[in-house]
Amino acid sequence: MRKLTLLLLAALIAFPLLADEGMWLFNRPPRQALRQKYNFEPTQAWLDHLQKSSIRFNSGGSGSFLSKDGLALTNHHVGLDCLQKISTEKKDYIRDGYYAKTRADEVKCVDLELNVLMSIEDVTARVNGAVTPEMSAADAQRARRSVMAAIEQESTKSTGLRSDVVTLYQGGEYHLYRYKKYTDVRLVFAPEVSIASFGGDPDNFEYPRYDLDVAFFRAYENDKPAKIDNYLKWSAEGAKDGELVFVSGHPGGTHRLNTVTHLEFFRDLAFSYTLELLRRREVLYSNYAERSAENARRANEELRGWENSRKAYGGMEAGLQDPQIVAAKRAAEQKLRDAIANDPKMAAAYADAWPAVEKALDVYRPILRERSVTNFNSTLFADARDIVRLADELQKPSGERLREFRDSNLESVKQALLADAPVYADLETVKLSDALAHWVEVVGADNPLVRQVLGNQSPQSLAAELVRGTKIGDAKFRQQLVEGGKAAVDASNDPMIRFARQVDPRTREIRTLYEQQVDEPLRQAYAKIAKAGFAVSGGETYPDATFTLRLSYGAVKGYEENGKQIPWATVYSGAFARAAEHGNKTPFDLPKSWLAKKPVVDMKTPFNFVSTVDIIGGNSGSPVVNRAGEFVGIVFDGNLQSLSWDYQFDDRQGRGVSVHARGIMEALKKVYAATPLVNELTK
Amino acid sequence: MRKLTLLLLAALIAFPLLADEGMWLFNRPPRQALRQKYNFEPTQAWLDHLQKSSIRFNSGGSGSFLSKDGLALTNHHVGLDCLQKISTEKKDYIRDGYYAKTRADEVKCVDLELNVLMSIEDVTARVNGAVTPEMSAADAQRARRSVMAAIEQESTKSTGLRSDVVTLYQGGEYHLYRYKKYTDVRLVFAPEVSIASFGGDPDNFEYPRYDLDVAFFRAYENDKPAKIDNYLKWSAEGAKDGELVFVSGHPGGTHRLNTVTHLEFFRDLAFSYTLELLRRREVLYSNYAERSAENARRANEELRGWENSRKAYGGMEAGLQDPQIVAAKRAAEQKLRDAIANDPKMAAAYADAWPAVEKALDVYRPILRERSVTNFNSTLFADARDIVRLADELQKPSGERLREFRDSNLESVKQALLADAPVYADLETVKLSDALAHWVEVVGADNPLVRQVLGNQSPQSLAAELVRGTKIGDAKFRQQLVEGGKAAVDASNDPMIRFARQVDPRTREIRTLYEQQVDEPLRQAYAKIAKAGFAVSGGETYPDATFTLRLSYGAVKGYEENGKQIPWATVYSGAFARAAEHGNKTPFDLPKSWLAKKPVVDMKTPFNFVSTVDIIGGNSGSPVVNRAGEFVGIVFDGNLQSLSWDYQFDDRQGRGVSVHARGIMEALKKVYAATPLVNELTK
Repeated sequence: MRKLTLLLLAALIAFPLLADEGMWLFNRPPRQALRQKYNFEPTQAWLDHLQKSSIRFNSGGSGSFLSKDGLALTNHHVGLDCLQKISTEKKDYIRDGYYAKTRADEVKCVDLELNVLMSIEDVTARVNGAVTPEMSAADAQRARRSVMAAIEQESTKSTGLRSDVVTLYQGGEYHLYRYKKYTDVRLVFAPEVSIASFGGDPDNFEYPRYDLDVAFFRAYENDKPAKIDNYLKWSAEGAKDGELVFVSGHPGGTHRLNTVTHLEFFRDLAFSYTLELLRRREVLYSNYAERSAENARRANEELRGWENSRKAYGGMEAGLQDPQIVAAKRAAEQKLRDAIANDPKMAAAYADAWPAVEKALDVYRPILRERSVTNFNSTLFADARDIVRLADELQKPSGERLREFRDSNLESVKQALLADAPVYADLETVKLSDALAHWVEVVGADNPLVRQVLGNQSPQSLAAELVRGTKIGDAKFRQQLVEGGKAAVDASNDPMIRFARQVDPRTREIRTLYEQQVDEPLRQAYAKIAKAGFAVSGGETYPDATFTLRLSYGAVKGYEENGKQIPWATVYSGAFARAAEHGNKTPFDLPKSWLAKKPVVDMKTPFNFVSTVDIIGGNSGSPVVNRAGEFVGIVFDGNLQSLSWDYQFDDRQGRGVSVHARGIMEALKKVYAATPLVNELTK
Repeated sequence: MRKLTLLLLAALIAFPLLADEGMWLFNRPPRQALRQKYNFEPTQAWLDHLQKSSIRFNSGGSGSFLSKDGLALTNHHVGLDCLQKISTEKKDYIRDGYYAKTRADEVKCVDLELNVLMSIEDVTARVNGAVTPEMSAADAQRARRSVMAAIEQESTKSTGLRSDVVTLYQGGEYHLYRYKKYTDVRLVFAPEVSIASFGGDPDNFEYPRYDLDVAFFRAYENDKPAKIDNYLKWSAEGAKDGELVFVSGHPGGTHRLNTVTHLEFFRDLAFSYTLELLRRREVLYSNYAERSAENARRANEELRGWENSRKAYGGMEAGLQDPQIVAAKRAAEQKLRDAIANDPKMAAAYADAWPAVEKALDVYRPILRERSVTNFNSTLFADARDIVRLADELQKPSGERLREFRDSNLESVKQALLADAPVYADLETVKLSDALAHWVEVVGADNPLVRQVLGNQSPQSLAAELVRGTKIGDAKFRQQLVEGGKAAVDASNDPMIRFARQVDPRTREIRTLYEQQVDEPLRQAYAKIAKAGFAVSGGETYPDATFTLRLSYGAVKGYEENGKQIPWATVYSGAFARAAEHGNKTPFDLPKSWLAKKPVVDMKTPFNFVSTVDIIGGNSGSPVVNRAGEFVGIVFDGNLQSLSWDYQFDDRQGRGVSVHARGIMEALKKVYAATPLVNELTK
């Protein structure tokens, strides 16, 4: 009855029903909402334990510790980057899966880095103190960059921890995040990709689902399993229909605070251009992959990435093309602006934020495409450019460098540059050819830099020549240049280094323009809009996502779609039924291991489930925990209706999709007979 | 020794070697070039026989008659449109192939129309006589359209033949083409698509190849096989290395006469936009097809079409991004313009053509995208729009209508509208959703027409509503509206008809703008450039391709690529080897019929071969004949190097790719045991 009462009350007082919205800061959890709606009060110990059990994967996802010996769980699609880099033509960890029966069998990832958030400190006053109102945007941006680098460097020196100053509320606040960092990470278990991503692109972002989207890794320190104080207890029951659950993870980015003008900018330019780019890449990589099984293996991870983004951006664009969604956003914005206009003090402080956003976007519009194409979508080029820039940037004090080359981040930059991940010359040529052609399309064949770079050659022949001629693919060569510093880089005749040097001035020019005339004014404007929002709405708020640790909450529950009730969970039998429907054909093919164990698995085992937790890309691999803080599942996706959560949360139909703890355990026990792993998880 | 002598001579006198260039008019064959280079003089009877043995397929390709009983051969990929339309979930003619052992088994295509060119008449004087210099471009365009319709109507009345006034040299000349038309066309034989398109998209436009890209149809008249006077004799030997061959077919369109500015317009806008659209469609259809085998079947033909065009345009764009190709074009243009400038009479007559082209393109640029997206990529919409337009246009005299609704073409329009081809609601919804979203992207969400059309709905929900609500998919309903005329259409509340009515005014506005301010000025400008070209170069010339019958010639010969000699022909064993290399996996899978007959086929049989014949899209299915006019092969593709032939012929590496007559015969005899068909071809 409580639910009904609440609903009735809400209807009577004409407030919207309190949705399970929010990607909350761990140092500012939604205490009031949890108390009111779920009668739950998290203790500081509960929060600290969950925070320190949570992991950020530098391959773009989240995860959690599940044993005192450094056992870490994430999604298969988050671990994919490692799987791709350790695979070869002869040993394909993605297609075949892997289980390390003993510690000795665990396989070291090439460049996977795990970060665990140890502390948060508000440094807003110090950061903003470095910027004065009379500064130009360019000076403000430089001053801000400089003080942030100083704070980070001091912190790293004093604590030994990775220290990042994080921009929150799009510039409203700055917090210092200190991370414990693990750089020796090894693969323990990955299922075959066909069950990890069962249903492939067609089922991606859809529900019901049947995916074992999990991979286990182990963090090592000094060549031994890392000793972990905070790890999650495995729940034998797993998630239950209707219960309150929490997600602790790293949502990558949202745009909920954005103005309507800014959303229209996404709809009319940024998203449609991004979709154009994503489709271009998807076609390019699909065509390459179709040529042979080995090509398909080489392109696997990147192709999945393009497909995934294309589907996500498609949903995001579709939402903004829905007149009702834009109208709702417009109404909410108007309400805020009216409130500001009616208060002279607020008007003086905040009203100029909206025109400032428009002005920044006017600067951005003409450079958006060029800014995007000049990364040339090439690993060899990216390494060459980073080497060139590293040499240049190290000539300057830390605070004046391009932000990624600040002292506190140098170790990570070098680790990434020197890691020995495979690079395939044929795929590089295909990628660089297309990227050069795209660049020519965007800036024009008569652009002086294009003419200088191409000379007498076509994009295709130049790409082939650069890839054939460069030694950047050789880790030792990269090391020589990195260690040799500016003198070595300047002396290098490597064609890719030369190419990077040719294009870098213009790329930097665009970056400076973007940072000073787009990013900085937007930060300042959104800081005002965020403050105005606090002032008007009062109460608890959360900042837009920033790939930093957040706490979400919600209920495990199904939803209605086209008059049909979609259940809260799927079960094992559904996977077998769906595979059979499709003649077990890719991407609806179950691996042999599953087909063989069909007689022994419990067909009623919950497999995937949905909940109203507020998540977004980057949350992949986030643990789902119950009130007791126990692991009950792992987030791996949202449904199609959740894609517009980028700019507006709505849990009438939108849901996060997770793998159920029992679904994982049943597979480990019955399909994979992974007894030591099971024991480690449950002891 | 003759070849070497010629080459040496050419080098000595510093003239380019006479390339096998040209898509020649049958009433203006390259007599001089053939005599000089190949010592061949075609007689009028030879030309007439080849012309009347050649067929235009309205599905966008070419073909030829091969028996007195109406047996017609084209490519499988040209016949695919018919195969798609007669296939169902239960009977898939594309996947499984088909052979009609008896006439009674031959399957009627839904809306395939064959045209055979019976006569050509130069009507340039009469067409140009209707246009006076003082007319505005709009009046000129109307006057020209009117006189063309009148000429066609007179001709149809007096001869009973389909009569088209064809624009040649982009407006330099107008010829009246009279066609015998066959509208009852039946499927006789098609191989499985896996051998017809062996190698799929990866091998498309590449060579060496192993494709049995053929399909046999039969033309019927009065429910009996058509009696054919002119058909090609089958050559038992087929094409031979080094020999002179001819291709008689319907190249769709080339841009060789275009100014450099116009080519830059293609490179910088038209091609890159077209590629964007093609990739978008490819991704959309691939995603749809991936969901199930039945989806894949439904999307099959269209998806192959998008892939094919994407690869073709990719090659065309790559050529124009090659600085050397553009420089060559620029030099040739400068030479012509210098010659004009140096002759006051020519300067007065022709020099203004170049600025006129630029001006027309300035009008085109801002409407190019909108012009492209307003077809909404939907069969149901296209039918609704044609019904609405037919009703409106029939209120006017023939010469004032949109050109496709002129009296002489009405029968074809109605046949297409009333044909009962399958339409799949789910695929239509996917297509229309995306096309509406694309339209919103191109013209903007705040465009008044967009707001009017969408109302409160998203593109997705509107598309679903339109497809769900319309009865246009029902041939009887279409017939009622077509027969009911304007009164019936105006009274209709069908949602798709309503939608077509909503968007038609704007679409017509764009079309009028295009026809009057882009197409007409370009015609006039290119007519001048063509005349200037004749005047300066003298000698034999051919107009750009226009999907009308042309004669090409060349030699059967291999070429060198990356220092490797590519042989003139492939043989059967190569197909089996390539399939084995790829584990017989799609798209490198040979059909069961081939695998079963592997022991009995002659592995040395020539399969595909290359020649220097000048071809382009639309030539697919063209017969290749020898000096004796015998059928020695059938064109189905060009190699990658031929893709830039759109704007510049170059046979150093560029080649047309054909199926060898012996390759076809071996399969018919040994794999398919198609004895009656073999007998009909060889008797």
